[in-house]
Amino acid sequence: MADSPNCDLKSLSPLQLFERVTEQGEKVRALKAGKAPKDEIDAAVRMLLSLKLSYKTTTGQDYQAGLPPRDLVLINNGITKEEDEDFVDPWTVQTSNAKGVDYDKLIVRFGSSKIDTDLINRIERATGQKPHRFLRRGIFFSHRDMDQILDAYENKKSFYLYTGRGPSSQAMHVGHLIPFIFTKWLQEVFDVPLVIQLTDDEKYLWKDLTTEKAYEYARENAKDIIACGFDVNKTFIFSDLDYLGTSTGFYKNIVKVQKHVTFNQVKGIFGFTDSDCIGKISFPAIQAAPSFSSSFPQIFNGKENIPCLIPCAIDQDPYFRMTRDVAPRIGQPKPALLHSVFFPALQGAQTKMSASDPNSSIFLTDTPKQIKTKINKHAFSGGRDTIEEHRKYGGNCDVDVSFMYLTFFLEDDDRLEQLKQAYTSGELLTGELKKVLIETLQPLIAAHQERRKQVTDEVVKQFMTPRKLAFEF
Amino acid sequence: MADSPNCDLKSLSPLQLFERVTEQGEKVRALKAGKAPKDEIDAAVRMLLSLKLSYKTTTGQDYQAGLPPRDLVLINNGITKEEDEDFVDPWTVQTSNAKGVDYDKLIVRFGSSKIDTDLINRIERATGQKPHRFLRRGIFFSHRDMDQILDAYENKKSFYLYTGRGPSSQAMHVGHLIPFIFTKWLQEVFDVPLVIQLTDDEKYLWKDLTTEKAYEYARENAKDIIACGFDVNKTFIFSDLDYLGTSTGFYKNIVKVQKHVTFNQVKGIFGFTDSDCIGKISFPAIQAAPSFSSSFPQIFNGKENIPCLIPCAIDQDPYFRMTRDVAPRIGQPKPALLHSVFFPALQGAQTKMSASDPNSSIFLTDTPKQIKTKINKHAFSGGRDTIEEHRKYGGNCDVDVSFMYLTFFLEDDDRLEQLKQAYTSGELLTGELKKVLIETLQPLIAAHQERRKQVTDEVVKQFMTPRKLAFEF
Repeated sequence: MADSPNCDLKSLSPLQLFERVTEQGEKVRALKAGKAPKDEIDAAVRMLLSLKLSYKTTTGQDYQAGLPPRDLVLINNGITKEEDEDFVDPWTVQTSNAKGVDYDKLIVRFGSSKIDTDLINRIERATGQKPHRFLRRGIFFSHRDMDQILDAYENKKSFYLYTGRGPSSQAMHVGHLIPFIFTKWLQEVFDVPLVIQLTDDEKYLWKDLTTEKAYEYARENAKDIIACGFDVNKTFIFSDLDYLGTSTGFYKNIVKVQKHVTFNQVKGIFGFTDSDCIGKISFPAIQAAPSFSSSFPQIFNGKENIPCLIPCAIDQDPYFRMTRDVAPRIGQPKPALLHSVFFPALQGAQTKMSASDPNSSIFLTDTPKQIKTKINKHAFSGGRDTIEEHRKYGGNCDVDVSFMYLTFFLEDDDRLEQLKQAYTSGELLTGELKKVLIETLQPLIAAHQERRKQVTDEVVKQFMTPRKLAFEF
Repeated sequence: MADSPNCDLKSLSPLQLFERVTEQGEKVRALKAGKAPKDEIDAAVRMLLSLKLSYKTTTGQDYQAGLPPRDLVLINNGITKEEDEDFVDPWTVQTSNAKGVDYDKLIVRFGSSKIDTDLINRIERATGQKPHRFLRRGIFFSHRDMDQILDAYENKKSFYLYTGRGPSSQAMHVGHLIPFIFTKWLQEVFDVPLVIQLTDDEKYLWKDLTTEKAYEYARENAKDIIACGFDVNKTFIFSDLDYLGTSTGFYKNIVKVQKHVTFNQVKGIFGFTDSDCIGKISFPAIQAAPSFSSSFPQIFNGKENIPCLIPCAIDQDPYFRMTRDVAPRIGQPKPALLHSVFFPALQGAQTKMSASDPNSSIFLTDTPKQIKTKINKHAFSGGRDTIEEHRKYGGNCDVDVSFMYLTFFLEDDDRLEQLKQAYTSGELLTGELKKVLIETLQPLIAAHQERRKQVTDEVVKQFMTPRKLAFEF
């Protein structure tokens, strides 16, 4: 019955209900404008009121034109900026807790799954390799459908890896390396193709940059990424500004995603407003499209349904929740995900390391001396105010940034555990802990710089040329 | 003074004012949320109220959040759907007047210029050719900056032509040929390169079509366009779905336009709503980008500033008003335009011919018999109800569709004038006028069909391959 819309409304999401109310409102206006018969208008108005009531019942809020529901897990960025809440979206990470974001809460809110011991053991069995320290230590802590990727792998079916970076400046810091270090390990243990997206178009849209500058940053960043040790025969790195104009498959997938996502949705997911440019509004489709193998016909021989696994920091999840929502509607498999925690700023885990604040970051170009000075001067300490108190009460590893960094970069589990014990008991002083971090990071960064020097423009060109990789499809 | 924003507000457009109010509102909310000092909040609120007052003074309307000003020439589609008003946008043409849209009013509302005798004479002098009947008869009736194109041409500087078509089905009707017939003439008399955009992506986004089907329609439509007699050495026809993935320049211009147009603007210009998909919202940039020569590096040798002239039906003007607004901000010249009237439906000039209503259209595939039947059965007549009345009072050419069609297709000016006199005086009967039209259209369409048969897939491929044309840049 047209007048009783409630029968099928219970199954609708808040956003779907919102859109039904909006449509019905437009219908009522059209009927009135078209001077339709009174009983027809009355029926439409009754339906509208009924829909508004359903909306209020479901969301606990009055319907407001132009304001889709925001504070619901499935349709927003997962975390609202309320008191004592963490705020996480692709551009901002902020928490009031010195231990950092509450990642268990994040899993519940985002609706993802915890990477538990069972899953880690299964990865170990499948690959025959010791799990990476990022898995052992919960740095990659959350996933979506990783079990399905393992099902495929165990059945000798192929998949591919997709990760990326927004090249906002030439300067990359150590935190930027986390997804690449882990992706390199994944590629080695699973032996699969990897595509790396450099979203120079995104940076052009969001920042005060020319397209030329954004592209230049993309190529410079590619050098640091390549210096992580990727295999040119198994890895394709691309700039959007460049690849969009050279791929027969990429734009077709972008426009398919764009057809299946409304402004209301991106408003809910990313917080866009009516004053945002149409480039930002449509950009999420460009980050979504590499999740589909048909965006890379040269690699996958035109095959459409090769599963995709995306290792990324958890703040990128909104893009891929959207992608997973669209995928079945355009006949594509949903990408699987592995989520990492954020790399904390030197000043503490309340926010992530940011290249735009030089004091918050250790850059890949820093000298041994700069590394030492920055850590000694800026790394937030969980130690006590005086040596006496520290010896007596011990330090707090949960908030100590030097210790956190060591969990990222010190490979030796036993050594890390010893340091934790010694610091917590007060045996190890802050300065001594910082010294261990300095001595860990200095050679790592020096080695990175050495490898980066080998990455010539010619090598970058090889990685960035669309081509077949060393896999048959 | 921060509290007195009025000093510089007078120069702002209604949309700019709207955006200032919106921004200030967001600022007030942020201050309140951040528990800023009371005097700071008060100052921001005073500024907000003052801005809202300026908005009301300028637009005569109260500010409404999320509802940008719509009924102002510069920012909307130019014509609002009020009583006794014509409605014109890229998807709908509707008027209550049997003579068709009031084009003089449209020129005032769109802020374009009339193609007057002076301009037509100048075109004749510059090209040394008799002006096309579409110019002589006011079928191309409006322009933007055509004088600048003639300045360039007279100074031996080059320009190029850009037109297009949305391939929504295989079936093209005679009305679809109008811009192509005229563009072909322009290309011949000026001897310049021509690019023709087939917006298969637009049709995929707006219609219930697959990308494959939309691309197929694009190629089929290309055959009818080529059959108009374009020179393959001077003409590049492209499908968006295809060319976007093969051009190093096209996407860069698209993203530049997308950075400089907000959702508020496309909402005002095209009437998009929050429920529209992000593909529609960002599409206008894709129709804008071919206005810039750097979208075709293969034709213009990478040159950026070759002026562009766009012949199109007036309903496409909103896209190019937007383009002209953006052009200087991305360092590109504004495209010039030549606007045609709409090709009326068989049933009368209240709306344009539409391929989706077979009875309103004469298709390029119609047989001589179908042409005859459709005109005799459906062409709206300006004749009288009886032969006696017709002989006595005469027919009305202003509303007679057969006569209108003859103004489009009968080349001989004297013959057309004779027909007009004879019909108006009552000497010529409706059936006789229709016979003239039938005998004019039948051979034209038969010849078109004959030429279309020569257009093989190979020929289409030649036209649609990105390449250098027979011009040096």
